[in-house]
Amino acid sequence: MFSLFDCPNPILFGHGNSALIGEKLTELGCKKVLVVYDMGIKAAGIADKVLGFIRAADIEVVLFDKVEADPPDYLVNEAGALGVSENVDGIVGIGGGSSLDTAKGARLLLSNPAPINQYFAFRNVPGEMDGIIDKNLLKPLIVIPTTAGTGSEATPGGIITDTKKNEKFPIHCLVSLAIIDPELTTGLPSGVTAATGFDALCHSVEALTSIKPNRLSEVLAKESIMLIAKYLPIACRDGSNIEAREAMALAATLGGIALRGPGGGIPHDIGKFIGIKYHVPHGTAGGCLLAETMKFIAPCVPDKVRIVAESMGAEVCADASPEMIGEILCETIRKLYWDVNMPPMNSFVNDKAELVDNAASLFKGKSQTPRPLTSEAVAEILANSYDNN
Amino acid sequence: MFSLFDCPNPILFGHGNSALIGEKLTELGCKKVLVVYDMGIKAAGIADKVLGFIRAADIEVVLFDKVEADPPDYLVNEAGALGVSENVDGIVGIGGGSSLDTAKGARLLLSNPAPINQYFAFRNVPGEMDGIIDKNLLKPLIVIPTTAGTGSEATPGGIITDTKKNEKFPIHCLVSLAIIDPELTTGLPSGVTAATGFDALCHSVEALTSIKPNRLSEVLAKESIMLIAKYLPIACRDGSNIEAREAMALAATLGGIALRGPGGGIPHDIGKFIGIKYHVPHGTAGGCLLAETMKFIAPCVPDKVRIVAESMGAEVCADASPEMIGEILCETIRKLYWDVNMPPMNSFVNDKAELVDNAASLFKGKSQTPRPLTSEAVAEILANSYDNN
Repeated sequence: MFSLFDCPNPILFGHGNSALIGEKLTELGCKKVLVVYDMGIKAAGIADKVLGFIRAADIEVVLFDKVEADPPDYLVNEAGALGVSENVDGIVGIGGGSSLDTAKGARLLLSNPAPINQYFAFRNVPGEMDGIIDKNLLKPLIVIPTTAGTGSEATPGGIITDTKKNEKFPIHCLVSLAIIDPELTTGLPSGVTAATGFDALCHSVEALTSIKPNRLSEVLAKESIMLIAKYLPIACRDGSNIEAREAMALAATLGGIALRGPGGGIPHDIGKFIGIKYHVPHGTAGGCLLAETMKFIAPCVPDKVRIVAESMGAEVCADASPEMIGEILCETIRKLYWDVNMPPMNSFVNDKAELVDNAASLFKGKSQTPRPLTSEAVAEILANSYDNN
Repeated sequence: MFSLFDCPNPILFGHGNSALIGEKLTELGCKKVLVVYDMGIKAAGIADKVLGFIRAADIEVVLFDKVEADPPDYLVNEAGALGVSENVDGIVGIGGGSSLDTAKGARLLLSNPAPINQYFAFRNVPGEMDGIIDKNLLKPLIVIPTTAGTGSEATPGGIITDTKKNEKFPIHCLVSLAIIDPELTTGLPSGVTAATGFDALCHSVEALTSIKPNRLSEVLAKESIMLIAKYLPIACRDGSNIEAREAMALAATLGGIALRGPGGGIPHDIGKFIGIKYHVPHGTAGGCLLAETMKFIAPCVPDKVRIVAESMGAEVCADASPEMIGEILCETIRKLYWDVNMPPMNSFVNDKAELVDNAASLFKGKSQTPRPLTSEAVAEILANSYDNN
């Protein structure tokens, strides 16, 4: 019933500390590292900044700058192969969840045979390192997130897309150190800030309303939700506002830690399908379902939904009915969509009926949720999200 | 400057889940375990309850019920030797910090040569397992705290007394699982509840006001302080109040996690000395210095001291001077001493002048604190704590 709490990744959080990466790699014994990132991070000048810090510590770098969203298995294999052929003794991931997860996958392949697909893990076996030969052989990995959303820096896992099956699978991979430097996120465009911010919000809300309650996660999730409701609109309007960026970076990391035990709910489960099918960012795909999901589960977990609503600053009177609490939170989240210009579903889904039919048959009974997920319920959540967000 | 955040111990928190220990030991592959506790736990009927759960899972038990406060090295050696001679494949610690720390020490000795003293670790080398042969050989350890204070369940370390040097030293030892069941604390006497509650309060306050700031720890510490200020008096007045017991158990665990990165300050440093010299519980010894310590550091970290004061429910006006904030918090903590009947220092220290002189020469410049600790400062904190608490 209760879920486990832990945070095995060591996290170093604070302004300007990406400059410490050279020192930290040296402490870990690294002399030549594979650096994994994407072209966006390169274009934003963030990669060069961090590479400068690494080189300043006399550490050689091997670059892999081809990361793609929803990291495909073949790129993970390619990054791993590059690291092996260059005989690196460590790895650095810089970027959003895709870069961090690609780096995690590549880390496994530095000391285990390719391809990555044989290390896909499955839900409900936390801690199991499927197929990994020897955890002690894993080479050091430092991750530096440049978005405030995925929480990948805070979790010992990653999500890789199996391109043959067109499906996402988890891998298990700790990081040696996560360096979170809010300064690196000041250049994020507003749209990315909003999408990744909603990803973090989903993590925290899903953690708090999970069917596997966790009093420690709740503490982190509540703070995370409060920070996001207050600071996400500011970070979207004024990307250079460092107070808002710091708050969002903290909120995302708290959300990542909080979610680990309780596990995701409806927005992440159905959102994963929407993200792949309609090629929208993970945070947009899940985020667009959050408001209606809360209305749906409120009758079963009104106290938890009240905590979410109040953490977001909504006023909920003491004698509000469960349905009323759900309505209030749904509208509060919807207002946040508008405040941060989240793209409505009709901007990326052409055929509403097709989506509703597909999802209803795919997800009936599939999501871990406090209220049984019938196909009618899936259809209603999707139709209302499409019509009203 | 910033400190690391992590929580490597997996924690299972919630009512009644000590009943899961048999199942969890079985998952860890244990068939015969050393169970480490003290006579108080035995007298309270807690040991028998937990032993029943273990035996119900067909796991054999070897009992070590001789734990003492400020766990002495020779008892750790004795527990370890018993486990080795009985060829146990796992270990369980039940009790306060002393039982948990004794179990941690014994765990090291199940797969490493005695005595424990050769594995004493030193500050500022987190993660280092001094002298440990192979971490992978360590046998599973489950800890079940029965007080809400030490946070030992949440940390990968313990404190053992070197009886030759009459000094306390840290050891590094993860736990495989911490099971926190607030129900087990309902029988704690009021005095133990108060002392251990103040230990937890010190952890959280010292974490929040540390010179090694940590935004993640702050989130946990703030919630912990809030819970203690609200629920410690209730738990002391009415031990069977399960809401208060749950809040205190959560607060203690949060405090343990929070303190790990930032590290302790004046109350723990000088308190350790007072505890050993005057044979008072760790929580009483550190706790009695907390009020005056806050007044002392307030001029240097007024914003942090304000957060502590406000988390404790004190009203601090917006333009309060640093000194005023320190005074307000000092009085708020002092009120909590009285509310929970903390023994005043003059009830266990006979010679005030001797204490002040000893401590002033011992601790001058020794504690990691936001304000330099002169011998005059030590003397003032001690004298005021003696006179005014």
